Amino acid sequence: MSSVIDLLKSHRSIRKYTDRAIDPDLFAELIVAGQSAATSSFLQGATIVRVTDKETRSAIAKLAGNQGWVEAAAEFMIFCADLKRAGNYCKEYGKSFEGDYTEHFMIATVDVALMAQSMVAAAESVGLGICYIGGIRNDPAQVSELLQLPRGVYPVFGLCLGYPDQDPEVKPRLPLSVVLKQEVYNEEGDREAIAAYDENIREYYRTRTGGGHGISWTEQVSSLLSEKARPHMKDFLATQGFKFR
Amino acid sequence: MSSVIDLLKSHRSIRKYTDRAIDPDLFAELIVAGQSAATSSFLQGATIVRVTDKETRSAIAKLAGNQGWVEAAAEFMIFCADLKRAGNYCKEYGKSFEGDYTEHFMIATVDVALMAQSMVAAAESVGLGICYIGGIRNDPAQVSELLQLPRGVYPVFGLCLGYPDQDPEVKPRLPLSVVLKQEVYNEEGDREAIAAYDENIREYYRTRTGGGHGISWTEQVSSLLSEKARPHMKDFLATQGFKFR
Repeated sequence: MSSVIDLLKSHRSIRKYTDRAIDPDLFAELIVAGQSAATSSFLQGATIVRVTDKETRSAIAKLAGNQGWVEAAAEFMIFCADLKRAGNYCKEYGKSFEGDYTEHFMIATVDVALMAQSMVAAAESVGLGICYIGGIRNDPAQVSELLQLPRGVYPVFGLCLGYPDQDPEVKPRLPLSVVLKQEVYNEEGDREAIAAYDENIREYYRTRTGGGHGISWTEQVSSLLSEKARPHMKDFLATQGFKFR
Repeated sequence: MSSVIDLLKSHRSIRKYTDRAIDPDLFAELIVAGQSAATSSFLQGATIVRVTDKETRSAIAKLAGNQGWVEAAAEFMIFCADLKRAGNYCKEYGKSFEGDYTEHFMIATVDVALMAQSMVAAAESVGLGICYIGGIRNDPAQVSELLQLPRGVYPVFGLCLGYPDQDPEVKPRLPLSVVLKQEVYNEEGDREAIAAYDENIREYYRTRTGGGHGISWTEQVSSLLSEKARPHMKDFLATQGFKFR
């Protein structure tokens, strides 16, 4: 196989960084590598806001659920879905702006994720560690205010970047047979495969927490889907102009 | 920098493939590399349906807007956002399923994109070419029927994979200053930078179409945002259980 495949397979989130700065030229190259990812209909619907200000970092770390690594990482940035940049030109060309369909929301959001993940691969290839911060969506209105995000732009997630000062284990993923289906969606064999995987995950947490009760994958994710998940998102997105028409 | 950064920067979509098959072990490794990407709240909300059946490929190629490479590529797969797999266990643990919040839609969709882009980096590192197929969302209901997607699962995009039989140019991306903002969202200087970029893009299209009128980036994307974009998406997603609560 390739060393890139090995690199990707060894991904784990890093939450403890050394104080080594990232060379500005390298940082720029990482963004350019991110930009090179595919973009739907050539929209390029992603904007990155790089945050260095300590107070802003601290406020975001807090609202994201006290994630201290947001403050400590060499670089922290917010990846935003951006329909404003392109939308600006509708008026210019005498067209009406109709960019509030569900589809528009999707293409901008997917653009952001593709760009981020391409940047992450680039970063990890030069020995950097990363951590996505979905927790910024705990209070996306405050994040938008801090970053002065206009209508047409919303913060999808944050990303910490820095040289790792820890070496955590890779977290096992679902068996391939569960995730890859042939021809049609089919759950045959999944229940047994997931039961075995649940034991792996329990063991993974037991090892990490030094003998405590491990929680299984199905316990974790069923909780996630039995809770009101950030019920403010829909209204927040509407105020930013994403209306799910 | 690193060869991985150079690799990522050289991405372009490939729409013409040789008839060389992809080794099954390599194909599996690519999926595993994709799975290794970060996943929000450990949901692992992505399922891939690999399509080899000729009739299904042909039907999808057609509905995606006659994209012949969907039929011709060595591998074609549909990346689905999947809340069903985790949701199955809500009942099992005596919890109610509430997984129809906007946030749930977002985390599953972002999971899919991160996984796909990680797989794409892996694929390109071994000399494969790729093409995302957003066109499957032209008729997501038919795609879902062909793939027998149950409630809780929806098709986000397709992906062609194969050994390239063409060597297209890299398509220039927006200037870094336009995409990367410092501390706050700020459009200062963007208009001028985008005007210069528009000329690059005109030239890029002129070169490729042999002297025809090039279309600029702002012309393209303002059109995209002045049109009803796949207005069926919202209702389609609702039938699959994604309700934007």
